[in-house]
Amino acid sequence: MKKLHYILLFISIGTIQAQSIQSPSKSITLDFKLSQNGKPNYTVTYKNKPVILESFLGIKLKGGIDLASNFKIEDTKKSTFNETWQPVLGEQANIVNHYNELTISLSQTKVNIKMNIVFRIFDEGVAFRYDFPKQQNLNYFIISDEVSEFNLAGDNKVFWIPGDFDSNEYAYNETLFSNINTEKIDLNNGIGVKSISGKYTVQSPLMMKSANNLYLNIFEAAVVNYPVMHLDADVTNFKLKSHLVPNAIGDKAYLQAPCVSPWRTIMVSDDARDIVSSKMILNLNDPSKIDDTSWIKPMKYVGVWWEMHVGKATWDYAGSQNAQNTSVNDMKPTGKHGATTANTKRYIDFAAKNGFDGVLVEGWNVGWEDWFGNWKEEVFDFVTPYPDFNIAEVSAYAKSKGVKMIMHSETSGSVANLERHLDRSFENMKKYDYPAVKTGYVGRIIPRGEFHDGQTMVNHFNFVARRAADYKLMVNSHESSRPTGYSRTYPNYIAAEAARGTEFNAWSNGNPPMHETILPFTRLLGGPMDYTPGIFEIKMSHYDVSKKEQVHTTLAKQLALYVTMYSPLQMAADLPENYEKYADAFQFIKDVAADWDESKYLEAEPGDYLTVARKTKGKESWFLGAITDENPRKTEIKLDFLMPNKKYKAIIYQDGKTADWKNNPINYEIKTMQVTSKSKLKLVLAAGGGTAVSFVPIN
Amino acid sequence: MKKLHYILLFISIGTIQAQSIQSPSKSITLDFKLSQNGKPNYTVTYKNKPVILESFLGIKLKGGIDLASNFKIEDTKKSTFNETWQPVLGEQANIVNHYNELTISLSQTKVNIKMNIVFRIFDEGVAFRYDFPKQQNLNYFIISDEVSEFNLAGDNKVFWIPGDFDSNEYAYNETLFSNINTEKIDLNNGIGVKSISGKYTVQSPLMMKSANNLYLNIFEAAVVNYPVMHLDADVTNFKLKSHLVPNAIGDKAYLQAPCVSPWRTIMVSDDARDIVSSKMILNLNDPSKIDDTSWIKPMKYVGVWWEMHVGKATWDYAGSQNAQNTSVNDMKPTGKHGATTANTKRYIDFAAKNGFDGVLVEGWNVGWEDWFGNWKEEVFDFVTPYPDFNIAEVSAYAKSKGVKMIMHSETSGSVANLERHLDRSFENMKKYDYPAVKTGYVGRIIPRGEFHDGQTMVNHFNFVARRAADYKLMVNSHESSRPTGYSRTYPNYIAAEAARGTEFNAWSNGNPPMHETILPFTRLLGGPMDYTPGIFEIKMSHYDVSKKEQVHTTLAKQLALYVTMYSPLQMAADLPENYEKYADAFQFIKDVAADWDESKYLEAEPGDYLTVARKTKGKESWFLGAITDENPRKTEIKLDFLMPNKKYKAIIYQDGKTADWKNNPINYEIKTMQVTSKSKLKLVLAAGGGTAVSFVPIN
Repeated sequence: MKKLHYILLFISIGTIQAQSIQSPSKSITLDFKLSQNGKPNYTVTYKNKPVILESFLGIKLKGGIDLASNFKIEDTKKSTFNETWQPVLGEQANIVNHYNELTISLSQTKVNIKMNIVFRIFDEGVAFRYDFPKQQNLNYFIISDEVSEFNLAGDNKVFWIPGDFDSNEYAYNETLFSNINTEKIDLNNGIGVKSISGKYTVQSPLMMKSANNLYLNIFEAAVVNYPVMHLDADVTNFKLKSHLVPNAIGDKAYLQAPCVSPWRTIMVSDDARDIVSSKMILNLNDPSKIDDTSWIKPMKYVGVWWEMHVGKATWDYAGSQNAQNTSVNDMKPTGKHGATTANTKRYIDFAAKNGFDGVLVEGWNVGWEDWFGNWKEEVFDFVTPYPDFNIAEVSAYAKSKGVKMIMHSETSGSVANLERHLDRSFENMKKYDYPAVKTGYVGRIIPRGEFHDGQTMVNHFNFVARRAADYKLMVNSHESSRPTGYSRTYPNYIAAEAARGTEFNAWSNGNPPMHETILPFTRLLGGPMDYTPGIFEIKMSHYDVSKKEQVHTTLAKQLALYVTMYSPLQMAADLPENYEKYADAFQFIKDVAADWDESKYLEAEPGDYLTVARKTKGKESWFLGAITDENPRKTEIKLDFLMPNKKYKAIIYQDGKTADWKNNPINYEIKTMQVTSKSKLKLVLAAGGGTAVSFVPIN
Repeated sequence: MKKLHYILLFISIGTIQAQSIQSPSKSITLDFKLSQNGKPNYTVTYKNKPVILESFLGIKLKGGIDLASNFKIEDTKKSTFNETWQPVLGEQANIVNHYNELTISLSQTKVNIKMNIVFRIFDEGVAFRYDFPKQQNLNYFIISDEVSEFNLAGDNKVFWIPGDFDSNEYAYNETLFSNINTEKIDLNNGIGVKSISGKYTVQSPLMMKSANNLYLNIFEAAVVNYPVMHLDADVTNFKLKSHLVPNAIGDKAYLQAPCVSPWRTIMVSDDARDIVSSKMILNLNDPSKIDDTSWIKPMKYVGVWWEMHVGKATWDYAGSQNAQNTSVNDMKPTGKHGATTANTKRYIDFAAKNGFDGVLVEGWNVGWEDWFGNWKEEVFDFVTPYPDFNIAEVSAYAKSKGVKMIMHSETSGSVANLERHLDRSFENMKKYDYPAVKTGYVGRIIPRGEFHDGQTMVNHFNFVARRAADYKLMVNSHESSRPTGYSRTYPNYIAAEAARGTEFNAWSNGNPPMHETILPFTRLLGGPMDYTPGIFEIKMSHYDVSKKEQVHTTLAKQLALYVTMYSPLQMAADLPENYEKYADAFQFIKDVAADWDESKYLEAEPGDYLTVARKTKGKESWFLGAITDENPRKTEIKLDFLMPNKKYKAIIYQDGKTADWKNNPINYEIKTMQVTSKSKLKLVLAAGGGTAVSFVPIN
């Protein structure tokens, strides 16, 4: 009996090993302790309201080593960090990175392995990571599981998409936490490759709102050499637990000490605008590793792209009837190929005339006749054009018009093949003066057995950005794992897709009107998205009367998206002829900036609405975007962000009187007025509508 | 009942659909038929003796489609082929490719899929492959199993190594077929990564000898875009069945019609020399796809290599104590690093002085301090030298001495990493004028889950050869899957290891004396091996008195290996100082050719002995090599291969009177005599010994 008492006493000593730390403004408090059996756990409170209840932390290694219990605290350290840095491209010229840090140095006493847990407490949230220092007993190791918990304080409202190792291109489900169930969602959604990982598994960033009106977001930052973290939801107990994406043989991550895990982040505020404007994810990434960033520039572009999605043209030259291992020399062109020299010149002319920086051309290279859904390793070589696309002629023509070409490298998921052709592909781009590449990963991954969100692929996406930097090329990756701030470290990684983009509207159930009101709270936290807005011919019946598909917004909302969906890479995605048809509305796309000095989130409610104003980088002009979900909305905005004592011409692009995303989406009005920083602006948004405003200073 | 009778009648018709074809000399007969349920099967007889009894053939696809039964014969075709072609490098200047071909066009009636089985009957054996023509019902497909059977006529003697998806570096087991059992062999054999695939699974080429003295060899040719075939032995019924190496998720091969499987080969003769001299494997591969082959040249080379194996030097610069994620700038050199500029210059001087073409340097590049056994993806970048290896200086020095450098690119199994650095690595070689690269694959493969012998890796090895050809570089791959004649198609693939090489003698139980008498019947059938012979200081106690390891031959046998082990790439593997010590014996290595007009296999018995004479390419000189196993041997050789009416000086390097591989291996004699084509030469070989002879025409 004496012995037992002693053990209990020891545990009791362990239990009191607690630490507490607050955010700079003291609104957030993080408490850490070791509980029974030396298990690390933490809680988070916001203005004395519980946000994360006691939640365990830990890592499990292949081979059975448990780094989730039997710890003792060796040391703790607190520090404060405050810096202001300047992103190469961004929503604002200056970003403040201010946090208090708590490092808990642990040792697992049974195996004598050291592991630190590092917490950073920002004013808008908490981040923590696992840190494996250099040590005798841990060199190479394989993570079999991460058991980071997020024990929620109640049955929050959640905006979720299902855990899928291969795709993040889902529309959001807005339910109570207790109603999360991936088996209840419609999977007839146009996604090509799905690997649903569990009935109750969801993806992050996971945006939530509590019953007591706290906005809560769980995500991760600096996912480098580690798989993506999905989240297992315990819908009865309102708990989330990390679910790492496995590799081909079920392992999660291969690491070597010293090393760190990504940051796990918990943003919280009683004001939704604090979440949407947060730069916490970027701040948690390493500063730029590119010294000379002068070649990294914002781009507005048009491209041979939407015409394929609407069925007017094809990516492939010859049609699938000729696809079976046929040499391009033996193929008969169908006459519907989009990426011809002549059609590309048309886009170059249009770009030059309207002040666009770039022209993207998809379907320019051999492989499209046999590319999709076959898990084929060698589809594209990334350098060989179709016979009707003269890359030298196109490039020379673009140069003569002052327009840059954007390369397109679709891989059909064959990453192995892209990697072994990557230097050649990049050299080809430099030869023809392409400054940027759009990569694509539609299809099951090769190396076979790997997933889009596994460590191998995370490493690949980051590798492509790094290697592109060797050639001073910018990267825009589609169907990649979603960014977690790597664009701070490699600012040439200017955009990614990694969420459900505009094209789904052309040929699937599309993106519901609330979609773009959620993305800034989720996908965009990790980095810019190439959402490709600007669709003016909203209904696909324009192209084919039998088609029911349509974009789920009004035309005015399409304009507003250029402001609400921050990206330094912005496409005017519709066809030149459609822009010429609505030239007055197109003027906004021509005018709007893509790089900013300041961004003011004026109104925000996830799933409902968003209003943001941004000041053009290096200029006095401002742009405002306001969007709503399926509900019409009226609001009044103070223009106090404008420079005092200065007059501006406000050009307002708004929904027309009878506008409605479904019944009358193209109905819009443009009006001009003079405003100052003391003015107020009434906004009237249609169902699925939006307003876009440009503010031009009057000299 | 009527219906049943009809069905039986139908099957009966199927059964009589038989075809027969003979080899050009009519010594071999192949019979094919469809048996019950439309199952293809074949038999092979040699001079009316059964060799392969009725054996089934077929393929199974993932998803359940069975291409092993329910066939009907749609068509059969017979043809004859006879050509003589000239290899770029080889054992002979002209190779005859003469066979009769039988094509059985089948259709699987239940799924309406066409598959052909093509047989080629050479005088020394039979080959067959599966051929999937272009067709409506078969485009992309995944092979889950191949069920090619080889039903032997009896309990043959077999020279086997265990089925291992990751290594072929085994010593051979000589047992009856009924005694094959991979669980009974000693696995403490120095092999780093083993993936034994079954108790009764063995590798091919599988050399056998029947009780009625037929020599039989089962192998494959033209393994391209397909995994390696191992063989499952049914030790009770003396049957072999194909066992394809799987990928990370258990699939075997990803194919797209039209396509073919590799050839499955069955060589048979009553004279072992017909097997060892056969060019059937090369003949079954496609002709050279390289137009200008002028840069592909034989090479004799020395290198910074054996000194690491014997423990005199290290590959790594800094020793493993500094290995844990340490920058090379922070490393302290141990002073034992082999690949220094100064030491390399010593080898260059030695090569230049003794007429060698090249110098290999292993351990020249960053990564060796942390390379082995950790399944680490980014170990080497293949271009960054250690601080003490000045690649520019070394290259310039080699050039000034008329010597070529051979690059070394060890991957530690991280194929993904090599592929993404391959262009850069090859560009680096061209920059410094390296004409050839030795690649290495010691370690578990990355992409993780893949094996050395899977389709992915087969494709990789072939890819490296093809891409090297773009740069006019020659490839010598170590730890690769064993060649199956691809060097005919890409003659720059000049050599591979892919069997147990000389280095095992330095630090393991080594290679038993019979080893080199088996390799020409197995590994060498598929292409040249970089066996790295020429070890003069046979016993490792020379370097460290405590060491028991030794090369399992006499010194004279080491010389003979330059003739018996055909390769256009031949290393003089021992240290310069050892060659200087035995300069008279070294003269043979300096003199011996590496490319040939003719090769005459004079005596051959697998596992026992081999005697071969070869005529130097474009010259009148001949070289002879004779080796024996652990038994001493006396023989007399007719020199009738020499040009009639011409006198030759024969320089004979033979075992000394008391020579013995174990007790007195360095004991040798050199004698000179004058001979003609009418002379006979008595050879006396010690236990584990050999004789090497050079015949120099006397003007």
